[in-house]
Amino acid sequence: MSPHPVEKLIAQADAAINREDFDSLMEFYAEDAVLVVQPGRNAVGKERIRQAFEAIAQYFGHGLEVRQAGLEVLATGDTALALAKTLVRAPGHPPAQRKATYVFKKDAAGDWRCVIDNSYGHDLLG
Amino acid sequence: MSPHPVEKLIAQADAAINREDFDSLMEFYAEDAVLVVQPGRNAVGKERIRQAFEAIAQYFGHGLEVRQAGLEVLATGDTALALAKTLVRAPGHPPAQRKATYVFKKDAAGDWRCVIDNSYGHDLLG
Repeated sequence: MSPHPVEKLIAQADAAINREDFDSLMEFYAEDAVLVVQPGRNAVGKERIRQAFEAIAQYFGHGLEVRQAGLEVLATGDTALALAKTLVRAPGHPPAQRKATYVFKKDAAGDWRCVIDNSYGHDLLG
Repeated sequence: MSPHPVEKLIAQADAAINREDFDSLMEFYAEDAVLVVQPGRNAVGKERIRQAFEAIAQYFGHGLEVRQAGLEVLATGDTALALAKTLVRAPGHPPAQRKATYVFKKDAAGDWRCVIDNSYGHDLLG
């Protein structure tokens, strides 16, 4: 089975995060997307998501590096759920593995966009 | 903040599973929904999902009891991601806790339906 289109998008989004190319990164998101910035704090809409990524880049001393160590996509119709093992590294911070959970929706133009981006997975539940 | 409508739907679906009321349970799903029956094996569409639940009920000796020990919903527009700690019990089986991941979509009639039901969460990634 060929990879689902969102697999490539996630790799492109990771690359955009790593080079702090937030213009490209925002192409990844739907207008009304939700990003979990940290458990209990969400950024809603592209403008706030961009601000959150700028703050995250600063927090990690502009050395953040994310990549997926595993990825599964479940999809039906115009909805896809991507489950990833995400490795997060930055100088001066202990490396972390997160269980990221992304929901994508295919828009009217046929493009897949991320509508929900929760890199904390079930850790939200405490 | 009032609970998201899918919280009530999940509780109703659990109750329908526990009393093996598969007619009611199927109301919970979109026509083209995907259920992860076990990692690597998916049931697609209501008919196959119903067959899977009938087989699951038989496997658990008609004593299956599921309930949520915790639930978080992230939603935007007509898409919702529900993350749950699901407790699964049945006579003669060790109790299990799963990290269930559900995606819901609001249909044209305004009703939320489950489109992706993955009770294994990131365990799909092995």
